[in-house]
Amino acid sequence: MSNSTKVAVLVAGSWGTAIASVLAANGHEVLLWSRSEDQVREINTERRNRRFLGEAVLSEQIRATTSMQEAAEGAKAVFIVAPSSAMREIASQLRPHLGPEAILVHATKGFETGTLKRMSEVLADEMQGMDPARIVVLSGPSHAEEVIQQCPTTVVVASQDKEAAEAAQALLINPYFRVYTTPDVVGIEVGGALKNIIALGAGLSDGLGFGDNAKAALMTRGLAEIARLGVAMGANPLSFAGLAGVGDLIVTCTSKHSRNWRAGSMLAQGLSLSEVLSRMGMVVEGVKTTQAAHKLSRQYGIEMPITDELYLLLFEGKEPRSAVEDLMGRDPTHESVQVAESTRTGWN
Amino acid sequence: MSNSTKVAVLVAGSWGTAIASVLAANGHEVLLWSRSEDQVREINTERRNRRFLGEAVLSEQIRATTSMQEAAEGAKAVFIVAPSSAMREIASQLRPHLGPEAILVHATKGFETGTLKRMSEVLADEMQGMDPARIVVLSGPSHAEEVIQQCPTTVVVASQDKEAAEAAQALLINPYFRVYTTPDVVGIEVGGALKNIIALGAGLSDGLGFGDNAKAALMTRGLAEIARLGVAMGANPLSFAGLAGVGDLIVTCTSKHSRNWRAGSMLAQGLSLSEVLSRMGMVVEGVKTTQAAHKLSRQYGIEMPITDELYLLLFEGKEPRSAVEDLMGRDPTHESVQVAESTRTGWN
Repeated sequence: MSNSTKVAVLVAGSWGTAIASVLAANGHEVLLWSRSEDQVREINTERRNRRFLGEAVLSEQIRATTSMQEAAEGAKAVFIVAPSSAMREIASQLRPHLGPEAILVHATKGFETGTLKRMSEVLADEMQGMDPARIVVLSGPSHAEEVIQQCPTTVVVASQDKEAAEAAQALLINPYFRVYTTPDVVGIEVGGALKNIIALGAGLSDGLGFGDNAKAALMTRGLAEIARLGVAMGANPLSFAGLAGVGDLIVTCTSKHSRNWRAGSMLAQGLSLSEVLSRMGMVVEGVKTTQAAHKLSRQYGIEMPITDELYLLLFEGKEPRSAVEDLMGRDPTHESVQVAESTRTGWN
Repeated sequence: MSNSTKVAVLVAGSWGTAIASVLAANGHEVLLWSRSEDQVREINTERRNRRFLGEAVLSEQIRATTSMQEAAEGAKAVFIVAPSSAMREIASQLRPHLGPEAILVHATKGFETGTLKRMSEVLADEMQGMDPARIVVLSGPSHAEEVIQQCPTTVVVASQDKEAAEAAQALLINPYFRVYTTPDVVGIEVGGALKNIIALGAGLSDGLGFGDNAKAALMTRGLAEIARLGVAMGANPLSFAGLAGVGDLIVTCTSKHSRNWRAGSMLAQGLSLSEVLSRMGMVVEGVKTTQAAHKLSRQYGIEMPITDELYLLLFEGKEPRSAVEDLMGRDPTHESVQVAESTRTGWN
């Protein structure tokens, strides 16, 4: 950790700032890019990013800038931690400044609206000519609020290329931030994106007072439907049993820090979607992801009952209570969790 | 649900009483057996089981008795919901009274100390001459405190015999209590027993203030080690992705109702094991299960790092903080969650 390396993080939201803090704690020179001059000033002079992280004090080794050139030029690695809706534009701004050897790590959980592309596909589109093996995905159970406080956290980095994944691992790893590597880019991206749908449902169930038993059942079925779509899209089924699958699902559905859970619990109180989004003041990826997954489930012919109910609730005016009740009341039959394609031992 | 059937439930702990309430809600004639005359009187005259369920009001259709003969004779089904340490003795008391056609459903989560047998194996031992196909296991995410209040709950029943599983399902199912069937007796028993170890660890991690990220990582690795041992013992790997695997793990590690979690959080405060057990006043299955799983992991040659650390903590005086830190600090490498035996797509 004593080899100081220049790295860039785009943008200065809560998770981007937390990743910047990990990199700074590891002794790297961290450039944190933001479009907002006020935010850049606050970070550089007050060592705070109050809108996203309250009074948490940021390291002196983080320097914020509004200049993409200053942030990215000469950086050994660029971390993009932006809302999914901003990914393409930020990548296109980054392109002229990204060095030929730099790795590109994203930690964004969602699909592109319209194209339904995964974030690494959007990056590959915008980085024409760049070796796609240099693209890495970071995911796992990691609330920014805890990472900033150096609480023990475990994540996974995925890349087609083992060396790129290991380069990201080497930059990030330290005693409180454990980093595993995996080749399953699709599984890590799909797991991270889709768990936000289940978190909305979990917030809804909790908001309606359905209890812990109901939420655990919802999460179990949610994991199964995430894995079904992921496997159809080419993921390794085992990824859904790992940190970016069940691990991230657990933290997002049960932690008080989760935005998607909070949004779901506000919907349960009868607030409209637009009221919820304006009160949150931060991006709630699960809403757009519900729309994307609803389309993907039809495209791949995969049954996704939880996603379908949330789609009806968010976009077609279904009442929260009847949406959750319709989920609970589905005809029970044999338990068949089609996570893997392995042969089942059964009665037949 | 209008076909009234005589059923018996042994014994009147919190989960046994909750199952009795479900059966009563479905219109069955429920005999609830207890050794304690005081408890029988409290249930029959005050409709309460205060030691286990506070002021929750019990159905008039539940009749408590200290007579095993009265409880079991003529019952179409007998539900045994007893601490694992009492299973063999209760089964042997039951034997002379169990009808030749009755199914025997247990909902006990643990192994027998010494023999390391699963509960259905203990039952088969004691019910010599009975067709083992009539033995059914009930498990899943189901805190008794919520079931008593008719919160939506989803469970699974397992039996070698499809008809026996479906008979148990038919007795229990109703709009708030969803019941799935599966043939995987081993997976359902192992998942239910071993998650209590992880819940002790989760309580410990929370008690030490390690945060939600750390707990989610612990649960993810816990699920992997449960599945590894379960598969070695003959379970279907997919069961661990289901209600009695990840579902029960989630509810036990994250709910305020969980005894094992509470016991872990008390250990984190520096209380000794015997102090914790005496303050709990109820059986904490995870403690004995840690001992059993520690032996089973050696017998089957399976790595179980979380179980090993908890064993050191519970039985060999290791400090809570260093046990949890040793878990967190394990050398990170490639993420390989060996849940299923399916072929992995990888870099090699």
